[in-house]
Amino acid sequence: MIRAMSVPSFMDLALMAAAEAGKSGEVPVGCVIVRNQEVIATAANRTRADHDPTAHAEILALREAAAKIGSERLIDCDLYVTLEPCTMCAGAISLARIRRLYFGATDPKGGAVESGVRFFDALSCHHRPEIYSAIGESAAARLLHEFFQERRQWAPRLSVAGDPLKPLAAASPYAPSKLASLLTGRPGLYEKSQTDLPPACFVPHP
Amino acid sequence: MIRAMSVPSFMDLALMAAAEAGKSGEVPVGCVIVRNQEVIATAANRTRADHDPTAHAEILALREAAAKIGSERLIDCDLYVTLEPCTMCAGAISLARIRRLYFGATDPKGGAVESGVRFFDALSCHHRPEIYSAIGESAAARLLHEFFQERRQWAPRLSVAGDPLKPLAAASPYAPSKLASLLTGRPGLYEKSQTDLPPACFVPHP
Repeated sequence: MIRAMSVPSFMDLALMAAAEAGKSGEVPVGCVIVRNQEVIATAANRTRADHDPTAHAEILALREAAAKIGSERLIDCDLYVTLEPCTMCAGAISLARIRRLYFGATDPKGGAVESGVRFFDALSCHHRPEIYSAIGESAAARLLHEFFQERRQWAPRLSVAGDPLKPLAAASPYAPSKLASLLTGRPGLYEKSQTDLPPACFVPHP
Repeated sequence: MIRAMSVPSFMDLALMAAAEAGKSGEVPVGCVIVRNQEVIATAANRTRADHDPTAHAEILALREAAAKIGSERLIDCDLYVTLEPCTMCAGAISLARIRRLYFGATDPKGGAVESGVRFFDALSCHHRPEIYSAIGESAAARLLHEFFQERRQWAPRLSVAGDPLKPLAAASPYAPSKLASLLTGRPGLYEKSQTDLPPACFVPHP
């Protein structure tokens, strides 16, 4: 008996890349770029791992795709990303002449397509892709929600009584971040908890 | 007798990087990033050479600086760039938490600081550097003006009678772009003339 198999959509592939990024402590956003119905680039956020503020999924995928086809203009390419692009990424998508942009969850705080500066509607935007939003939205939003929820659960525990890992780290061959990875099984979580969460999270609990 | 020597300013260094980029056929924009009065990154546009739509001077310098200090947040760094940052670069400067931004010429068409979406004044901008404009403005503008003027002079010659290089290229081991580089001594000029200039430039001259 032959059973029909479900083929993942391009947004499914972006969501899979996002989920992988989340497991390694990066904000779970994934992106694929498609040309002639073929995926030519897949990327997810790597800002932490690469120590690179520009290493958003879209930027990495655009660079990979442009290198692959040997041109900085991706005029016949479509980009799928799980979260509404930020201002930097919207600018890059326009510069790369992406044909169609598909995105998942909206980002009212940092987005730049339907939110924020709405770059593609601005007079200074010289190339506007076709835009399709809310593709795979609920799955993308769930990934992000779970990621940040987990970080908020961990942060107070890590920061109770100031910085509980410092005394341990002083007697350990590992840096506090490495030690936290070993203790929690979540690489990168400690560093994030120290920098990204609202200050209230760091107030010692009574 | 001891004579005072003139020490180049940080913007002078950015201008020198821009001039070098112009000689190799890239749009002449240069950038340096400074930390504790020391230059930790220098870059110029490389979109053509790298086939990378994101390879603006600012993005390359931000990546270099972040790699050097091992953090994606450049909170104590200042960025000097010869042209007003575009939307992509303004977004990246904000994400990188640059402390002070110094720029030269304004870019009414593509800029995003004093022009266009004025990103740093937007509610969705979560970090705004101190901004100092018109630093080395005339030198930066002259570089850009001369670069585009020269391209406009070349473009009609290359495009008279349609595409004069095609027959030559057909009988040559080189691609048209390489052939044009050899004939004109200006790498990249041919490709630029085919894509970047206004259509009027490509009308055969009487």
